[in-house]
This record gives sequence, structure tokens and C-alpha cells, in this order.
Amino acid sequence: MSNIRHALSVKRTDDFAKWYQEVISAAEMAEESGVRGCMVIKPWGYGIWERIQRLMDERIKAAGVDNVYFPIFIPLKNFEREASHVEGFAKEMAVVTHHRLIGDGNGGLIPDPEAKLEEPLVVRPTSETIIGDAMARWIQSWRDLPLLTNQWGNVVRWEMRTRMFLRTSEFLWQEGHTAHETREDALEETHRALEMYRACAEEDLALPVVAGEKPENERFPGADETWSIEAMMQDGKALQAGTSHYLGTNFAKAAGIKYQDREGSEQFAHTTSWGVSTRMIGGVIMTHGDDDGLRVPPRIAPHQIVILPMLRDKPEDEALLAYCEEVRAALASQSALGEPIRVLLDKRAGKAAAKRWDWVRKGAPIVIEVGSRDMEGGKVAVLRRDDLWNPENGKPNFDFAEREGFISRASAILEEIQAGLFNEARERRDANITRGVTSMDEVAAFYSSGEQFPGWVEVQWAKPTGDALEKVVETLKAHKLTIRNVPRDAAPADGACIFTGEPALERILIAKAY
Amino acid sequence: MSNIRHALSVKRTDDFAKWYQEVISAAEMAEESGVRGCMVIKPWGYGIWERIQRLMDERIKAAGVDNVYFPIFIPLKNFEREASHVEGFAKEMAVVTHHRLIGDGNGGLIPDPEAKLEEPLVVRPTSETIIGDAMARWIQSWRDLPLLTNQWGNVVRWEMRTRMFLRTSEFLWQEGHTAHETREDALEETHRALEMYRACAEEDLALPVVAGEKPENERFPGADETWSIEAMMQDGKALQAGTSHYLGTNFAKAAGIKYQDREGSEQFAHTTSWGVSTRMIGGVIMTHGDDDGLRVPPRIAPHQIVILPMLRDKPEDEALLAYCEEVRAALASQSALGEPIRVLLDKRAGKAAAKRWDWVRKGAPIVIEVGSRDMEGGKVAVLRRDDLWNPENGKPNFDFAEREGFISRASAILEEIQAGLFNEARERRDANITRGVTSMDEVAAFYSSGEQFPGWVEVQWAKPTGDALEKVVETLKAHKLTIRNVPRDAAPADGACIFTGEPALERILIAKAY
Repeated sequence: MSNIRHALSVKRTDDFAKWYQEVISAAEMAEESGVRGCMVIKPWGYGIWERIQRLMDERIKAAGVDNVYFPIFIPLKNFEREASHVEGFAKEMAVVTHHRLIGDGNGGLIPDPEAKLEEPLVVRPTSETIIGDAMARWIQSWRDLPLLTNQWGNVVRWEMRTRMFLRTSEFLWQEGHTAHETREDALEETHRALEMYRACAEEDLALPVVAGEKPENERFPGADETWSIEAMMQDGKALQAGTSHYLGTNFAKAAGIKYQDREGSEQFAHTTSWGVSTRMIGGVIMTHGDDDGLRVPPRIAPHQIVILPMLRDKPEDEALLAYCEEVRAALASQSALGEPIRVLLDKRAGKAAAKRWDWVRKGAPIVIEVGSRDMEGGKVAVLRRDDLWNPENGKPNFDFAEREGFISRASAILEEIQAGLFNEARERRDANITRGVTSMDEVAAFYSSGEQFPGWVEVQWAKPTGDALEKVVETLKAHKLTIRNVPRDAAPADGACIFTGEPALERILIAKAY
Repeated sequence: MSNIRHALSVKRTDDFAKWYQEVISAAEMAEESGVRGCMVIKPWGYGIWERIQRLMDERIKAAGVDNVYFPIFIPLKNFEREASHVEGFAKEMAVVTHHRLIGDGNGGLIPDPEAKLEEPLVVRPTSETIIGDAMARWIQSWRDLPLLTNQWGNVVRWEMRTRMFLRTSEFLWQEGHTAHETREDALEETHRALEMYRACAEEDLALPVVAGEKPENERFPGADETWSIEAMMQDGKALQAGTSHYLGTNFAKAAGIKYQDREGSEQFAHTTSWGVSTRMIGGVIMTHGDDDGLRVPPRIAPHQIVILPMLRDKPEDEALLAYCEEVRAALASQSALGEPIRVLLDKRAGKAAAKRWDWVRKGAPIVIEVGSRDMEGGKVAVLRRDDLWNPENGKPNFDFAEREGFISRASAILEEIQAGLFNEARERRDANITRGVTSMDEVAAFYSSGEQFPGWVEVQWAKPTGDALEKVVETLKAHKLTIRNVPRDAAPADGACIFTGEPALERILIAKAY
């Protein structure tokens, strides 16, 4: 529709990375803080995170997992104990070495040389090693197992190249940490968490994901198995949106998490960890955003319906506000998607049309405009964010609805928008997974065909390990490609490995990735 | 009642500090982490914090304040700008100087000398200086005001002497930060936040508090006015449970928070900040705890009612569990104190009596025990945490109630417990504020009378400032006393200043404090 004047200056097809930054800025989600690699999360971005937190937290609690809080500082000795864990994290951590500042004599401040810590502390990049210490104290017998804990908090990983929400030095997340009697129990928990993430991503964030196991080279440092959910962004790249790790007895051995088993002998516990972060918000933007800004799935929208009275700074405004307040109250007293509808009556000064575009860019699912003529006719003008433009005239696609009729349909419309965003994303994802590619040359050709957003390729392989896997990884890396995961629900292998020609053992997804 | 065998080994009157530690340990609230000054908050302690957070957050949102998130790291230059602010904080902050670790050649790790930060970063002790930077970017005109933000997070102040919940190097809190056109608007917000804290402390935590202004020497570094709510602990000491600051234009000048006023000229904004922390949980323990452990006010209890089936590891258990589940569901479908009742059916293995004492020490408001004989008679055995002992026989004071009768009374009982805890604390507090003391000698005599828990003294003073105030502070300090605040709701002064003999201007509360 060339006659549509979109609300952003950059289109997705112009420059996806630039479009992403513009959405974040235009939707007032976040901004650079001036502190290296750290962002400021603004009210609309944080409101979406609060919704994700609440919905995920309900799922976590329903599984019998208890929330706890551990220190942000971790002593170096905790990292020294688990060699492969250090390897993975030691290169990118913030280290606290002093506990006081003094004046430098020129009006500035410096760390006080007299206040150097005997042992430096690391700002947690993840908490396995410190929660492991507590598990070692808390667990004596099989009766203390399973031990199921979760923490909501901030972590820091010193990233060289950062991008808002996707990769920041500090980010917000939850990290689950559990301990179990057996490998089977721990694996069951690893899969329960993975399935919880799949359900939250698909049902709450409307992000279709592929759940599967990461190849050996992509495992969490110190894990025996790492599972992930992978989502496809509109530029065809993959985003790892959550991970769940079976840690075997590796961390239990490092921290001394032992228990007396049912026969009375001492065993190491099997542990797991699992996490999702503010990164998910980046996934929501790159999945549901369009050339007018963000579209927030109703389940995670801080406001699902925004009412804009067309105020004229005149005495008549009072009656109009009263009418809008009645509409607000009637909507708020109903439920949609299992919760009371979240409605905002936006009374701020300013023209309704300008405010409309604010809310379009922010992606509120439904915007209602009400002028005095609407009020007199008992009507409201309804604009659905998922059906913004009238293709015939290129104008905003308002539905001038009877007030009572709209109120009675609101819940169904929100449910329709939630399902619609998910289905649109799933169809796009499914249409962009290419199967039947049988050689690395074909893979390379596929990604160099010039298609702007080529998507993912599913291939079969013989599951190489060690050096053989390293060679595969290097081959893919030369084309900026990575193995995303071995889909849990893929069809069994029935062909040859595209790397070695051996009989294939499983299917893997290959993609460019964030 | 000498025939009562209390559930703790230390009584409050034996050693209040030791009793406090025992409650925290016996109620499984928190424990030492092994990291200097930092604690691990365990599920029951964290569950109480989650309840406080939720209730406070509702109050914050209802006032139109938006939640946001700012970086945990603050550049040194932000502190250098506000001299009195540095003064107050610079001596106790964690300083990050490196962003990588390397091996020390002996299997250990050290900060990598090659990865020294050009400018060290401070782990936030509070966020005025970094949120001020954002306010300067966000505010241009009077139309952008008021700007109302709040952040939930962790902060670090390097404390030399720590005590769990009351004073820890890292703690969890919320910090509100607002900007306004005028002094009047900012003061109104300072008082709104103070009143919100009073209401939350009294209505949710059942902590009676005195709201009032801190004397000049107790102001937040950089503030023009600091207001607090002060609660009296059972040992008569005061606990500052929340503060609200009017910052004048001090931080606005340091960060450049300017706006164009209604007449078109440039003005500095007036800012406020206000916070409460996990310290409040220490106040709940020292206000409501008794010689059997904690008593959690129902509004902040993670579980308000705990059902303990008397399982016997026999096939009959199934019918008993089904009966208990019916009771649970019937209770959970009701509301108390404006929310659905939170009920736990504790199915863990182990004797009901042992589990009963776990929940008594944790302070669940109501514990129900159900054996097969109760089930057959359609009954439940109800134990109220606020009426634990039968004074006649020294045994737990069970009410053997008809199931339906109890279910229909549960909501009223919870409301009665909430009100009862508050009234008990308020009566104790009021009985322990001594008035009519007219000289410093009398104050000194009062606190050296040998009374174990002497409480607070209200006196009148001429509101000295500068050196004169410093002298008063030193005099009080010699007796380990402090000025808590100038109660907002105190009677007007009508006598002489106890320090100078001049006509008094206001009344102040003097107390030993945490």
C-alpha cells in the first residue's frame, strides 16, 4: 500500500538493525545509559518485563519452586573450583577490588588504596557456584531432595559488543537452580523447565519457538546437556530465548552437594539450572514489530486498551471524560485471557491524534478515540493495532462501533489479537524453515542466494563430537552460520550426514543468530 | 505460664539480640552467605518480601508512578558532582576496577592487569545521581512534569558491622525518584510517599509507626528535608522503617535537570526520593515475634493457613488427603483482607506435630491439623498463632471445630489476627513513650534506671542548628541515644527546650536505635 504513511522512518526491509533501534526509541522501551553496555529500561519496556515476570513467576511457583535471593558478589574461590565454568565466564566479569573512594586531591575520586579487598569479588554472571554452596549446607539426605529454587535479579557479563535487550553488560533475568537424587529426576526437571519456557513464550509472548538440545560446543560452561528454545525473528535470524541445563554432578562435586541415599550411602546430587532474561523483549520486538512500531501481545501488554478522549480544553471536556471513564470502568470490570482487562484512560494534555501515534508506536493492542460527537451517538472509534490501515484509502482503519457492542466484544478481540500475532509468527517461521537440503554446499548456496531474510535450514547429521564437531562449527562459522539446536519434536533422521556422509543420527537447525 | 515449653531456646527477655538471630534461623528466613556482609534470603523470608513488594507496588502504581530500571554501575563522575552526597556515601561503596580475570599461575584467579577500567565504576548505593542524568534528558518543559519513577532492585553499601535484614552490605529495596515544577509540588510528593509508607507499614505489616521529620544532622546526604517512619521494637529501640526526602534543587543543579516554565524561562526542577527495604522484615520480626518464633501478619504471610494431614503412610492416607484437599479448596475460594486466602496443604513426609512446630516458628497465622478421626467427625483442629497456648494446661490451644463452621469463619479470623497484631504493637508502643521529661538529666536517668526495655522519650526543644545541634547530638550519643524524628502529628510545643532552656519550638522523640 504505497499510500500508507507509516509511523517509523525506517522500514524493516530497509535496514532491520536500524529499524530495531528505532522501535526501541519510538516505543520508549529503553535507551543508552551512558554506562558502558548498560541500558535504562523505560516505563513501557519495564511494564512489559513486569508482565513477563508475573506470568513466568506463576508458572515457576505452580511447579513447586521457591523464590530465594543470593548475594550479587561471588568470591573468586567459587569460580576456581569448576574449571570449565571459569573458562566460559572468567573472561567477561566485573571485578570489585576496593570498598571505598577517596579524593584524588583535584576534586575527583579514586579507589582508596587503603581499602583494597583481601579477596576480590566478582559481580555474578550467573549463580550456580554460590547457590551450590548453600545446597551443600541445606542437603543432607534424600529426604531433602528435590530442592527447587529460583532467583529473580540482575547479572553482569562484560560484553564487548552490546545491543539493547539482546546483549547488555547488565541484564535482568530469573535463574532456576535445582538438586535431585538421580540423573533421571534432574533430566525430568530440565525438561519441565524447557517446556515451561516453551509454553510461556508461545502462550504469553506469542513467540513460536523450537525446543531442542544444543550441540556439545554450545553447552553452558560446566553442563552435561543444554536445551534451548529458539525463535525466528522477522529477518530470519534465530534468537535463543531461554535455556535449561542438566549439570550432571559437575557442580555438586565442585561445591560438595552430597546426600545420604535411601540405602544409606553418600551420593552427589544431580543439579540443573535454567534461565530467561530481558532478552525475550528483544524477541518480542523483532517478531511482532512492524513498520509502525511495536505490537505487544495482549497478555504481556501493560495496557491492553488505551482510551483517548478528544479533549478541547473547554468545559465540555468534563462530560467527555465522564463518558470515557464509564467506558473504562465497564471494560476493566471484564476479563480477557484469564485476567481483568487492563485499560488506561489517557487524560494527558495534547491532541488525541498525536497521542494515538504514541500508542501505535508503543503497540497497545487496542486504541479507542472518543470525541463529543461519538459520545452523543453512544459510540467509540476503535483502532486495532493488528489491523491498523485501511488498504483502500491508506488511512487508519477505525471501526466506529456502538459503545455497548464494543464493550461486549472487547474480550474476544483481545483474544483474537493474541492468537493472531502467534499464528502470523508461526506461519512465517514455518514458511522459512527449509528442509531437504542434503549438502554443505547447498547450505552455503542457500545463504548466498541474495534473499534478504533467508530463514533457517534443517539438515541431518551424524552428531560428531570433539574435533569433528569443531570442524563442522568452523565450516558453518565461515558462512556466519551456527547450529541452533536438535529439535525435540523433529522427525527421526533418515538420510546421510551433510558433513561426513555417514548415516545421520538426528536433525539440526542451522541459522544466522543473534 | 511456667508450664509452657516454648519453641525457641532463647527468650526475648534473656537476650534480645540472640533471640532475633534464633528467630531468623528457626523460621528459616535467612542465613549468612559466606560473602562479607551479604545474606541468603531463604524461601520463607523471600516470600514475605514478595508480599511486601506486591502490596507496596500496588500503592506506588496507584499514585501514578512508573517503574523503571537503571544500571547497577554508576560512573565516579556522577558522585563527584554532588559534594555532600559523596561525603555521605563515598566511604562505603563497592568499586569495580577490572573487567576480566586471569589465572595466577597457581590454579587461582586474579583480576587481569590488562583489563583495568579507564574509569572505575561504583556499585550503586542509591541511584539519585544516575537517574538525575536521565531526568535531565527527559525533561524539557513544565509539560514533562511531574516525572514520577520508581525502581525495585539491589544496592550495596559497604557496612562494617552487619546484622541480617537490619544492616547488610547488599540489600533489596525500592527507590522512588520524582521531579516537579515547584517546591510545593515536590514537598507534596515527599509527604505522599511518607503517608504511603505509613499506611503500608500499619495496614499491611501491622507495624505502628511515627511519621515525622528527621533533624538536620540525620538528613540524607544532599537532601533539604528528610522524613521518616519510625517503629518501636519489643526491646524499646527504634527502627527507621522508611524515608522520604525533599532534595530541593540540589541534585537538579548537579545533573542539569532544567525545564522551561509556564512563562518561558528556564528553571531547575525540584526533586524527591523515597525508599523502603528488606530492613522492614527485621522490623516485622522484632515487633511481632515471640518466644515461639515469628508471627507473620496475615496480609504479608506467604501462606495464611497451613493444613497438616496426620499421615500414617497407610492406604487410609488417600481419603485423608482428599478430605484436606476439599478443605483447602473451600478456603482458597474465599477472600480475606481483600485477596483470595492463601492456603498450603503441606503433604511433605514427616509427623504432623513436627511440622506443626516448623509452621509455628515460621509464624503462619493459622495451622490446621487433620487426623482420620477428625475427618470422620467432619472436624478440623485449628491452632491460631496469636493464641498458641492454653494457659490452664500449658498445651497448644487447639480449637476442635466443625469443618464448615471453621471455613465460614476463616476470613474473619485472619482479619482479627491482622488487627490484633497491630493493636498489640500499638498499645505496647504507646505505653512505652514517656512524656513530660523536662531535662537532659531526666533523660539520662530514665535510660540508666535499669529497666530492660525502656522505650522512647518525647521531649521539647528549640530546634538548634549547626554547632548547637552538633552539641545536642554529642550529648545524646554519650548515652547511646539518638533523635528519631519530629512527629508530624505531635502536639504543639508548650514548654522549654531541655537542652538550652529557651522556649521550645517542637517535640522530638529520643531513643536508642537500630
